[in-house]
Amino acid sequence: MGALHAGHAALLVRARKLAGRLGSVTASIFVNPTQFGPNEDLSRYPRPFAKDQALCRTHGVNLLFAPTPEALYPDGFSTWVHEESVGLGLCGGTRPGHFRGVCTVVLKLLLLTRATHAVFGRKDFQQCAVIARLVRDLNLPVKLDFVDTVREPDGLALSSRNAYLTPEERSEAPRIYAALVAAQAAVARGESTASRLRRALERRLAAIPGARVDYVAFVDGSTLQPVSKVTTGCVAAVAVWLGKTRLIDNILLSVG
Amino acid sequence: MGALHAGHAALLVRARKLAGRLGSVTASIFVNPTQFGPNEDLSRYPRPFAKDQALCRTHGVNLLFAPTPEALYPDGFSTWVHEESVGLGLCGGTRPGHFRGVCTVVLKLLLLTRATHAVFGRKDFQQCAVIARLVRDLNLPVKLDFVDTVREPDGLALSSRNAYLTPEERSEAPRIYAALVAAQAAVARGESTASRLRRALERRLAAIPGARVDYVAFVDGSTLQPVSKVTTGCVAAVAVWLGKTRLIDNILLSVG
Repeated sequence: MGALHAGHAALLVRARKLAGRLGSVTASIFVNPTQFGPNEDLSRYPRPFAKDQALCRTHGVNLLFAPTPEALYPDGFSTWVHEESVGLGLCGGTRPGHFRGVCTVVLKLLLLTRATHAVFGRKDFQQCAVIARLVRDLNLPVKLDFVDTVREPDGLALSSRNAYLTPEERSEAPRIYAALVAAQAAVARGESTASRLRRALERRLAAIPGARVDYVAFVDGSTLQPVSKVTTGCVAAVAVWLGKTRLIDNILLSVG
Repeated sequence: MGALHAGHAALLVRARKLAGRLGSVTASIFVNPTQFGPNEDLSRYPRPFAKDQALCRTHGVNLLFAPTPEALYPDGFSTWVHEESVGLGLCGGTRPGHFRGVCTVVLKLLLLTRATHAVFGRKDFQQCAVIARLVRDLNLPVKLDFVDTVREPDGLALSSRNAYLTPEERSEAPRIYAALVAAQAAVARGESTASRLRRALERRLAAIPGARVDYVAFVDGSTLQPVSKVTTGCVAAVAVWLGKTRLIDNILLSVG
């Protein structure tokens, strides 16, 4: 989606590693209109194309694919990809149609670029799971690779949407990840009842000034179904509104 | 779907022509469960695999791809392709979910076989239009080719489902195509009002002993939207039940 930051740079570094010195790395930059809801931030989403282009060049990208919306969605476009399990809850629950747009555009981009490998960031944890399902179910000839979330020194997950935050919101935003770290600490201390963990996490997030919790979930790491007992490999995932900005983050849990 | 007949053989002949002497022709044989409705003929659909295999060999097929349902639809399969315009009416209207199954399996088969060209028969006229839309919208790297319907000497369109017909039904079945030919004759004589053509065609079909009309439509040949005035390039498409067997057929219309 462009508005590249150090998280995206980590994807380019991984892609270069996968491609080797002689392989070709393609980056796509496309603010995909079909994954935004009618009241979301499509029109104000940042599009610093020249800066993005420079970062791609710095990281040795061989091909930068930046189509227009009209090129990807011609008149009469009517074919959509729906993932109907992994994509239902979490962001899929509060952003109806979001993963339909994601699945459709990712399939198109993978076919257009003829990618043999594709790299995605774990900050969009549910997106990674949905795309893994898409690739398996539709027999796409591509290998997926996921890269860990890159964070600011204070813990805030890098996101193009962090640019929307007011200075006050920015100063409170690290408390989202701090709350996830506290949840993992509780799990490490032996707490495994998801409902209790969930309430505690929710309380911490709700205590952030200006925050409104969108969802808090403890789920199985591959099916994304809610769990009642947390085990290693489960994930705590949250979405939180800070003022007009919706931020997501997640943490992989491990017991003991 | 197997149960190969001379219509399928015409597809293989076309595929060989497209591939040239040195190219590779792949045939898929797969009775796709997901394109059958709950009360349809999935379990009794004919599966004469050895005979199909022999016909493929005769026609110089290089690779016969005949997966199991479990191979194409693994546990937890949850990703579906929906075409939401061309596939809505006609067979899509009376067989809900049919084209979802068709689109999903065709995308999978095209990706698995790495086909550069794919050949489909015009008897399944709406299927051709839906697949054309799918290939365009999802940027599939494949060229489509459509082959005219092959008919019995008495005009009946070849179909694997003709095997279901009783001798009495078989003797009446050619009247479906005869009714389509009569519609085209009326168009050639200057009749262009779709509602009148539709009523006349419906009457002819309803007069066939044992017949129940599923749909009769006069549509634009590429959008498949119903037309009020018939012009060259429009298509008359019908589905008719003869006893327990549903048959489809269509005719390309031309004025004067």
